[in-house]
Amino acid sequence: MKFIKTPVKGMCDMLPSDMRLREQVLNMIKTSYSKYGFMQIETPAMEHIENLSSKQGGDNEKLIFKVLKRGESLKSALEKGNYDDISDSGLRYDLTVPLARYYANNSEKLPSPFKALQIGNVWRADNPQKGRFRQFTQCDIDVLGDDSNLAEIELVAATSNMLSTIFNSFEGVKVSGLTVHINDRRILRAVCLQAGFAEEDIGSVLISLDKLDKIGIEGVRKELTENGYGEDCVNRYLAIYENLSEISCADFCGKLSEEVLGKEVADGVNEIILSVKAMSDENVSVVFDPTLVRGMGYYTGTIFEISIDGYNFSIAGGGRYDEMIGKFSGQNVSACGFSIGFERIITILKDMIGEACGIDANNLAILVHKNVTAEQKVQLFARAKALRAEGKTVSVFPMKKNIGAQCKKLEDEGYTEFEKVYPSEE
Amino acid sequence: MKFIKTPVKGMCDMLPSDMRLREQVLNMIKTSYSKYGFMQIETPAMEHIENLSSKQGGDNEKLIFKVLKRGESLKSALEKGNYDDISDSGLRYDLTVPLARYYANNSEKLPSPFKALQIGNVWRADNPQKGRFRQFTQCDIDVLGDDSNLAEIELVAATSNMLSTIFNSFEGVKVSGLTVHINDRRILRAVCLQAGFAEEDIGSVLISLDKLDKIGIEGVRKELTENGYGEDCVNRYLAIYENLSEISCADFCGKLSEEVLGKEVADGVNEIILSVKAMSDENVSVVFDPTLVRGMGYYTGTIFEISIDGYNFSIAGGGRYDEMIGKFSGQNVSACGFSIGFERIITILKDMIGEACGIDANNLAILVHKNVTAEQKVQLFARAKALRAEGKTVSVFPMKKNIGAQCKKLEDEGYTEFEKVYPSEE
Repeated sequence: MKFIKTPVKGMCDMLPSDMRLREQVLNMIKTSYSKYGFMQIETPAMEHIENLSSKQGGDNEKLIFKVLKRGESLKSALEKGNYDDISDSGLRYDLTVPLARYYANNSEKLPSPFKALQIGNVWRADNPQKGRFRQFTQCDIDVLGDDSNLAEIELVAATSNMLSTIFNSFEGVKVSGLTVHINDRRILRAVCLQAGFAEEDIGSVLISLDKLDKIGIEGVRKELTENGYGEDCVNRYLAIYENLSEISCADFCGKLSEEVLGKEVADGVNEIILSVKAMSDENVSVVFDPTLVRGMGYYTGTIFEISIDGYNFSIAGGGRYDEMIGKFSGQNVSACGFSIGFERIITILKDMIGEACGIDANNLAILVHKNVTAEQKVQLFARAKALRAEGKTVSVFPMKKNIGAQCKKLEDEGYTEFEKVYPSEE
Repeated sequence: MKFIKTPVKGMCDMLPSDMRLREQVLNMIKTSYSKYGFMQIETPAMEHIENLSSKQGGDNEKLIFKVLKRGESLKSALEKGNYDDISDSGLRYDLTVPLARYYANNSEKLPSPFKALQIGNVWRADNPQKGRFRQFTQCDIDVLGDDSNLAEIELVAATSNMLSTIFNSFEGVKVSGLTVHINDRRILRAVCLQAGFAEEDIGSVLISLDKLDKIGIEGVRKELTENGYGEDCVNRYLAIYENLSEISCADFCGKLSEEVLGKEVADGVNEIILSVKAMSDENVSVVFDPTLVRGMGYYTGTIFEISIDGYNFSIAGGGRYDEMIGKFSGQNVSACGFSIGFERIITILKDMIGEACGIDANNLAILVHKNVTAEQKVQLFARAKALRAEGKTVSVFPMKKNIGAQCKKLEDEGYTEFEKVYPSEE
């Protein structure tokens, strides 16, 4: 049988220095979110293949790692040539579809509203590339069963403050600022309608608008025209998005007729922005961003993203998705969530702080000669126990022939104190 | 498309109270082991199917959740009817096979000896039953590259002290004592040889001996005889195991000739027992247990298990397996590990303490009337921020019509302080 040393394609072995950083950040996330009353939950890594293929996962449904059936049911499917029926489950590609199932399954045992924190791995059979893995950690908070904008305010404030805390906690990390971008799907829709697009074209128009920061307003105009939309309609549409720097939600929505957008939408978004500003750390800005679209089809109201100065990607994103849970439970439940890009945060921190060592600062390495007596061992381990009880990290190692080289290596790992135990002379 | 509310068979949704307990215990494990210099690492959930089927996993290899190939390579295997070739990876069923691959892959970047801590989920397509799940958490420590018994001493002391700490940390948990059982595969082998069994029969004889606590010495005698072993040989063998209560390792090994067992084995085991005793908490006993076998085929030397008074199962087990890593790297590396039964510990604690609430004790629930003004929201969220900065858990909820019932429910979740915000009168 052949043994393979490398991990499976696109997945990573975590070294001690990686884990130390990841654990530090995860602890900050848990502590920070728990202060807002979010409660940790967990779903299994595997989900029924029916749920994963339910059209809630967007393009991620093309990237499912499917798990093979077993025993008779596999044999029977293969014999009949039912190749679409050889898998009964798959690895989850996000934490949102499992959360919807979880809430439908457990809502009677959960508070209402329910504030959930999920931290867990997800798997996608994507083309691996720098910074994109086939197994990665996601971290989501969601408020279920609250249709007021208190949910959005808590989610956005909790996440932006938590990120600001993380980036201020490591020596050598310089992040000048974070920007929270807020918009609403209902505003995006209203602009489409006011410009004259048909209701059924809105999805396609938003896909083009979403490319604005990459291809510019003329690029969007070209794409919309090529997609067959009338020139007048496209021009009316894009005119609303021209010269928008730092426009307030009220001013932007003032351009729209009450027929396409009720006043309460703009008021709601405005309240979120004001309240989050009141709760934000100094280095966090909160802006209304009428061009923010976000990819997933399931959003129904507010959407938000957090960008970090100096990087051209977002490190957190979310929004309101009031209709997904109903697909599992038969009963709609208000839902709003925020997902942070944990791996992106780790990448940014690693770039800035370099390799962290794997050992606590208060430590001692005891090097033991191979000929020490049983009594000496008993004594040295009893002493190690006492030191550990005082909070010290103590590690006992067999002494190597070249003690100098051994200590040098241990210093590189982060050991600062050394003690050598030789056989007692009798 | 059909949606399914329940998790996949044999797997669990974790409620907030479950997660709170699990997180508390995991934090104790991490803190406790880190004081011994163990460093956390992680391997991917998926492994190459070749590694999982390499005969290192024993019976677990029959329980692999296999992951389907994708795209052209799946299509081609199905078209050719190569049904054994439709999977390229599987979910790990333990943390030991992945650790051997990990060390072979990363040893140049790791200290030597290397003290690893792994905490992670494993998956087995086992028949689900009470307390046995298809996804569960394992927690392993291993010392790689240390052929001295310092490795065993550190592993056993770290684990028994950690378990004793956990069982003493929860109000209402009464665990009278833990017992560490220690034996050595070389001693088990020596007894077989001295009784007259052939080298190639040892594996089969040990499978019968392993049932001693279930079927008694006469049951073992019957099974060995039925398996065709000579009566004299069986009687000589079992005579060594009769009337053994609290025998020391030296006394037991004194029954064996130097031809079948070198003196250094008994001395080594004895040193481990003495040193671990010197490091152990009051409620931990350490005993030599010549009937301890342990199932896995890969052990080569000392083996150990921890049992808990009043329960008829072990909650931790491990031993030395010096030959496994060499199967991946081509070069043998001394290895010794201890795995704790995390799910069993959680089950014991849950039985004793009942439901834990999901919220910190220092908390405040703010109930907000739906007609409060934007200014009021700004103010209340700013105050919430200040309280959180002081360490309080603050959760903001929309006020319900029946405030009394709402507060009652929040009290059940663990909330102790309440504040109500009504629209300001102007």
